[in-house]
Amino acid sequence: MDKRLSEQMGFILEIDRLKRILRQTLISDAGRRENSAEHSWHLAMMAMVLVEYANEPVDVGRVIQMLLVHDLVEIDAGDTYCYDEKGMADKAEREECAARRIFGLLPEEQGRWLRALWDEFEANQTSDANFANALDRLQPMLLNFHTEGISWKEHQVRLEQVLGRNRVIEKGSKGLWEYARRVIDEAVERRYIRG
Amino acid sequence: MDKRLSEQMGFILEIDRLKRILRQTLISDAGRRENSAEHSWHLAMMAMVLVEYANEPVDVGRVIQMLLVHDLVEIDAGDTYCYDEKGMADKAEREECAARRIFGLLPEEQGRWLRALWDEFEANQTSDANFANALDRLQPMLLNFHTEGISWKEHQVRLEQVLGRNRVIEKGSKGLWEYARRVIDEAVERRYIRG
Repeated sequence: MDKRLSEQMGFILEIDRLKRILRQTLISDAGRRENSAEHSWHLAMMAMVLVEYANEPVDVGRVIQMLLVHDLVEIDAGDTYCYDEKGMADKAEREECAARRIFGLLPEEQGRWLRALWDEFEANQTSDANFANALDRLQPMLLNFHTEGISWKEHQVRLEQVLGRNRVIEKGSKGLWEYARRVIDEAVERRYIRG
Repeated sequence: MDKRLSEQMGFILEIDRLKRILRQTLISDAGRRENSAEHSWHLAMMAMVLVEYANEPVDVGRVIQMLLVHDLVEIDAGDTYCYDEKGMADKAEREECAARRIFGLLPEEQGRWLRALWDEFEANQTSDANFANALDRLQPMLLNFHTEGISWKEHQVRLEQVLGRNRVIEKGSKGLWEYARRVIDEAVERRYIRG
């Protein structure tokens, strides 16, 4: 078989493993934890529907592609819970190794392209990345709220943590940050988040 | 809250249910059945990586968006197994009702846009749809083969069924159909598919 197609198919099979990476967030019926593949799909759908709220003009096609690949490194590095300080300390190093291996499965120029999309998401310095990151923060908040804060309560998450972590939404979308603030206020009122 | 944003958020929460729609295909470690949300993510990733094999020039951004929405109707209509003749008989009707309700949750012009993408995928008459449909057929074949044909064997699927169902891949990509033919031949040889 053609080497190029063989590398591409190898990558496609390998990334199937993202379906086994579990996040702390529960899906909307609270029946189980969400995995990172379906999470990525959900974010891409949000980009399609919510793009009008981006602070600056964005290329929605690029935002979607960025969101589709943004968690691939978790296949090796695992999902690091955002309020786990110890896990967050060596996250960058673990993810760097993962990126080299996983994007390295592809033909070189394709690997470089996906790697660049992931780097751009992580650096969060372009309007596309700002909006993509805003969605990545907003989505678990919606699910956490909708599942009566089970995940927040389990980890005894405090208001200042939620605000600290999610304020970056504003960088991508003032409109969605305003919405998020209302969700957070309501979550405190209902004691899903410790005020 | 603003009516428009409220409708959009309602849609975003509603489509979370696609994560609970199980397909017949197993994920690559054969540990469980695949759900339609992670399946859609996987197809979108395949579009990014395999677009060079499309028979005709396609707009990869549109192909991705089509793949992200192509299974949403299953939230109401369920996943119909492709070799279930009885289920396939009233599939169109069930999916039509589902499309009206689910896309109808969105602000009108957004609902019409997503509905048109889904219709285009189903009609399979444009080059974007041809390529999207090719990926939708190829992906379960890859997973079925990789999991040693468990799903094919369970349903005692025969070669002529697999060929009949998947020949449409050729309409979107002669290169990927050639690849699929090799996978099918090997699957028959290994007795995953009844020759």
